[in-house]
Amino acid sequence: EKKWYDRIGIRGYTQFRYSSTVSGDKDAVSYWPDKSVGEDGSFLIRRARLVIFGDINDHLSLYIQPDFASTPSGSSTGHFAQLRDAYADIHFDKNKEFRVRVGQSKIPYSFENLQSSQNRLALDRNDAMNSCCRDERDIGAFFYWAPTHIRDRFKEVMAKNLKGSGDYGMFAFGIYNGQGANRLEGNNGVHMVTRFTYPHQFSNGQILEAGIQALRGRFVPSTGPAGGFTPVMDAPEKGFKDERVGVHAVLYPQPFGLQAEWNWGRGPQLNDGQTMLTESSLNGGYVLATYKIDGLRWGTLFPFVKWQHFKGGQKFERNAPRNHVNDLEFGLEWQVMKEIELTAVYHMMNRTNVASAPYERYKADVLRFQLQWNY
Amino acid sequence: EKKWYDRIGIRGYTQFRYSSTVSGDKDAVSYWPDKSVGEDGSFLIRRARLVIFGDINDHLSLYIQPDFASTPSGSSTGHFAQLRDAYADIHFDKNKEFRVRVGQSKIPYSFENLQSSQNRLALDRNDAMNSCCRDERDIGAFFYWAPTHIRDRFKEVMAKNLKGSGDYGMFAFGIYNGQGANRLEGNNGVHMVTRFTYPHQFSNGQILEAGIQALRGRFVPSTGPAGGFTPVMDAPEKGFKDERVGVHAVLYPQPFGLQAEWNWGRGPQLNDGQTMLTESSLNGGYVLATYKIDGLRWGTLFPFVKWQHFKGGQKFERNAPRNHVNDLEFGLEWQVMKEIELTAVYHMMNRTNVASAPYERYKADVLRFQLQWNY
Amino acid sequence: EKKWYDRIGIRGYTQFRYSSTVSGDKDAVSYWPDKSVGEDGSFLIRRARLVIFGDINDHLSLYIQPDFASTPSGSSTGHFAQLRDAYADIHFDKNKEFRVRVGQSKIPYSFENLQSSQNRLALDRNDAMNSCCRDERDIGAFFYWAPTHIRDRFKEVMAKNLKGSGDYGMFAFGIYNGQGANRLEGNNGVHMVTRFTYPHQFSNGQILEAGIQALRGRFVPSTGPAGGFTPVMDAPEKGFKDERVGVHAVLYPQPFGLQAEWNWGRGPQLNDGQTMLTESSLNGGYVLATYKIDGLRWGTLFPFVKWQHFKGGQKFERNAPRNHVNDLEFGLEWQVMKEIELTAVYHMMNRTNVASAPYERYKADVLRFQLQWNY
Repeated sequence: EKKWYDRIGIRGYTQFRYSSTVSGDKDAVSYWPDKSVGEDGSFLIRRARLVIFGDINDHLSLYIQPDFASTPSGSSTGHFAQLRDAYADIHFDKNKEFRVRVGQSKIPYSFENLQSSQNRLALDRNDAMNSCCRDERDIGAFFYWAPTHIRDRFKEVMAKNLKGSGDYGMFAFGIYNGQGANRLEGNNGVHMVTRFTYPHQFSNGQILEAGIQALRGRFVPSTGPAGGFTPVMDAPEKGFKDERVGVHAVLYPQPFGLQAEWNWGRGPQLNDGQTMLTESSLNGGYVLATYKIDGLRWGTLFPFVKWQHFKGGQKFERNAPRNHVNDLEFGLEWQVMKEIELTAVYHMMNRTNVASAPYERYKADVLRFQLQWNY
Repeated sequence: EKKWYDRIGIRGYTQFRYSSTVSGDKDAVSYWPDKSVGEDGSFLIRRARLVIFGDINDHLSLYIQPDFASTPSGSSTGHFAQLRDAYADIHFDKNKEFRVRVGQSKIPYSFENLQSSQNRLALDRNDAMNSCCRDERDIGAFFYWAPTHIRDRFKEVMAKNLKGSGDYGMFAFGIYNGQGANRLEGNNGVHMVTRFTYPHQFSNGQILEAGIQALRGRFVPSTGPAGGFTPVMDAPEKGFKDERVGVHAVLYPQPFGLQAEWNWGRGPQLNDGQTMLTESSLNGGYVLATYKIDGLRWGTLFPFVKWQHFKGGQKFERNAPRNHVNDLEFGLEWQVMKEIELTAVYHMMNRTNVASAPYERYKADVLRFQLQWNY
Repeated sequence: EKKWYDRIGIRGYTQFRYSSTVSGDKDAVSYWPDKSVGEDGSFLIRRARLVIFGDINDHLSLYIQPDFASTPSGSSTGHFAQLRDAYADIHFDKNKEFRVRVGQSKIPYSFENLQSSQNRLALDRNDAMNSCCRDERDIGAFFYWAPTHIRDRFKEVMAKNLKGSGDYGMFAFGIYNGQGANRLEGNNGVHMVTRFTYPHQFSNGQILEAGIQALRGRFVPSTGPAGGFTPVMDAPEKGFKDERVGVHAVLYPQPFGLQAEWNWGRGPQLNDGQTMLTESSLNGGYVLATYKIDGLRWGTLFPFVKWQHFKGGQKFERNAPRNHVNDLEFGLEWQVMKEIELTAVYHMMNRTNVASAPYERYKADVLRFQLQWNY
C-alpha cells in the first residue's frame, strides 16, 4: 500500500501587503477586500494558505484549504485558521472526465472567481462578478464534466504559466446553500448554478477561452443599525430573489493577453433613503490586458491594466448597500523566481464604502504592494 | 535517525450532511448534535477532521486532531480549526500495556463515546451516555492498561471492520477538569472516571465485549435569560454534584451485531418552573442492532436500527434544561469503498429542544443523509 | 525535483500544566501568562504547537507556526488554531548570511523573547522585556545578518542543548506595525527595532553572549470601563510614545549558566487615579542562574533560580495598567528524554493583577508543574 505522504501532500502560499493612499479622499477610503488599504493600515498578511490535497484512490481526490489569515466575527484578534475549501472529488470514470465535487468549494461562476488568488495579476477580484458569492464559495454539490483533451488544455495553460483557472469542467452544474462560504443556510431552498466554457486552441498555439454562466436562488441578507435605524426587508421570509447571468472571454498571454467578463442580474439592495432593502437590478464587469515578458535574467514580468465597473447591491455586506465601482488599475507583477512574486499596483479607486453607513462614495489613488511566496 | 514523515503521519475524514423533516412539528425541530436538521438547514459539513499522529519514540505517541467545522461562540462565521484531541501517550513498558494519556482526550466512559464518529453507524451519539461529557472529551490525565492479547483483540475488531472503539484499555482511570472539551475549568476540584471492559472471544470467533464505568465530580453550568428571567443555581460555588454509573455490552457484527448501554446518575437540571437549577436524577441508554452484508459487487452494507431513551438534565447546555428523548432510527450505511461511505437514516424524533427556552418537546420524522470520505 | 516532504516538514511541541496556590492572597491571584494559575484553574494546555517549515529553494525558507491553544476574544470556548509565526526568510546569498524575514515573526528585542518556549527553563517569560511586544511578535519585515562562523556558533549552542535562542542575526533591523501579533495596525506609522548581539567563545569552549537592543514607535492602547469609568487617553491620535533600550548577557550552561537582561523606556500607563492613560517611564529585567547535570541514568537536569523585577505600564492589556513585579522562582527541569520534559517551579509572586480593575497587587506562592512533549 502507498505511504501516507504519497497519498496526501501539502502546499500553499502567503500574501504580504503594504498600501499607501497617495491622493484623494484619504479619510474616507475603505476597501472591503483589503484591510491594508485605508488610514490605519500598514503591513497585512492578506492570505496564509495551506492546502492538504491528494489522490486518495482512483475515485477519490481530497482538497482541504484553511486560510490562517481569518478573523471570527466579533473577535479583536485575527490570524485564525478557517476553511476556504474542504471537498472531495468523486470521479465516476478512470479518466476523471466526470466527477462530483462535494463539500465547501468554489461556485462555478465567472472566470476570475475560479482563478486562484495565487495566480491572479490584480491583487483583488472585481466587484461585479465576485459579489455573486461570499468568498467565491459555498457548501453544496457540483457536477463537472470535461473530455480528456480539454482537461489537457486546462493543464497546459497552467503548466505554461499563462494565468489559467484550472479545471472547473467544460460543463458544470451545482446546487448549494447560497449564504456564502462558512455561513449557515438561511432558508430551506438551494441555489443552482451552471456554467459552460470552451478553451479553443488555434493552429498557432494561441488559446481563446470563452463561456457563459448563470445562477439563481433566494438570499437572506443581514441587517443592522445604519444611521440609528435598522432597515426593513421587503422580501418573503425565504429571502430575496438572487439571479445572475454572465459571460467571459480570455485570450491567454502568449505574450499578449486579454480578459473580460460582464454579468447582469437582480438581488437585494438598500434603497436611496437607506430605510429598506428591495429587489433591484445589478450589472458590471471588467477588462484586463497584460503582456508576458519572459527570458529576463531575473524572472518574468507581467505589466497589466484593469478597468472594472459595477452598479448593484453588495448582498453579503450588512444591509446590502448599493455599491458603485469605477476603478482603474495599473500594475506590474514580477515573478522573481517560481516561488517569489512581487506586485505593485497604482489603483485609482472610485467606489463606495460598503462597510459602514452612510455608505458614501469616495475617490482616491492608492499605491499597493504585495510580496507572495509559494511553497 | 528516522525522517519526520516516518515519525508523523496525517489522516482524517469529512462528513457532509443533508436533512429534511418529513412530518411532524416541523417548525419546532431543533436537534443539538446536527445543525442540518431543522427548518433552515440544507447542506452541512458536520465534521472535517485532520489527525496528526505518530510514534515519536518507543515511549511517546502523539495525537493531535483539529476539527475544521467548529465555530467560536459568538461568531456568525464558522469552519474554524478547533482541537478535538491533543494528547501524548506515554508508555511505561516496551509492550505498551501500561500508559498515561495526557492533554485533551476522550473520557473513558461509555462504548459509543469512545467509538470514533468515523466508525459509528448512527449519525450521532445517544443523548443518555453522551450527556456525561461535552464533546466526549476533557483536559486531564488518564491511565490505561490492557495486556497484549487484549490489545490484539481490540486491533482485530478494527482490522475486520467490525465497528470497534479502538484500545481505551481493559482498565482505565483518569482525572480531568470536568467542564468539557475546550472549556476552562470552573472550580478547583477535578472529576474522576474509571472503566473496566472485557472483550471475550468465543471459540467460534464471535467477540462479546462488556463492561462498566463510573464518574464523579462537581460541575458548574452556565445560565442565561429564559423567558426574560435568568434561573438561579441551587448549588455551592464549586458546582453541582455530577455522578454517573453505566454498563455496556457489544456483540460485534459477524454478521449480526447487537450493542446496548445504559447509565444512571445525578446532575444539575432546570426545574419545572424554569426558575432554578437543582440537583436531579437522570437515566437512559440505547440498543442498536445491525447486520453486516459483505461480498457485494460494490462494497459493504450495514442496515441498522437504534432505539434510545433519556430523562435528565442536559448539563452542558445553558440552564441545564431537562432533556426527554425517546427516538427510533432506521438506517443503512453503505461502504461503497473503504474511503467512501453513504448513510441514510429515517429518524423518528421524540425529544426536547434543549437549545432555547421554553425547552419544548416535539415529535418529527427526519430523513437524513451523510456522505463521508476517509483519507 | 524534490518531493514535497523533502521541502516541507512538520514538528512541534505541547505544554500541559497544573498549578496550585500554596499560600498568600489566594483569591487575588491572577497571572496573565498562565490561566492554570489562580483559583479556578486546574489542568491547562498552555501551548499546542505545530510548525510547518522548510527550505523551499536556495533563497526561500518557510515557517508557519499555529498554536492550537488560542481563544478568539469574546469566545467562551478555546483551543482554536491561531498563528504565532507565518514568515518567509528570503536569503540574498548562498551562505544565508544576509536575509529578510517577511510576515509575522518575533521582534528582535531581548534574548528571552527570542528563545523558544520549547527551550526556556522558566515556565513564562519575564514581564520587563516581554511587555515590549504582545506575544513577542508582530507583522513586518526584519533584516538579519550573521557571518557563517557566528551562525555555526548559534547552531552549536542549540545542538549541545545549552538553551540558546537560535539565529536571529548578529545584527538585526526591522520595521513592523507595533500593535502586537494577530492585531490590526492602529496608526499610520511603523515601529522600528534594532539589535546587536555577539556570542564570544573562549578557548576553553565556554560561550558568553552579550548584546544591546532598542525599539521605538507609537502605540495605541485599548481602553474600557474600570470601576464604572473608562479612562481617557492623554496622547495624540497616532498613539503614545513607545520607546525602549535593553541589554542582555548570557553565559551558556557548561555546566554553570547565568543569564541577565534589563531594559528602560517610556510608554502608556494608567495613572494613579485610574482615570487617564499618560506617557510614563518603565524599567526592569531579570537574572537567571542554572546548572546543567548530564550523565544521569535518566536524562538531564536543570535546577534553576530566577529573579525578576518590573515597574511600568502593561501596554497591551486594556487600560495599560501599571504593573509592578518582584518575583522569585525556584525550579527544576527534568529532560527525561529528548522528547519528554517535566518542570516543577516554586513561584513566589509579588505582582499586579493586570487583567481586571482596580489592578490590585498581591503576594502568593504558587507551585507549578509542566509536562512538555516534543515531536
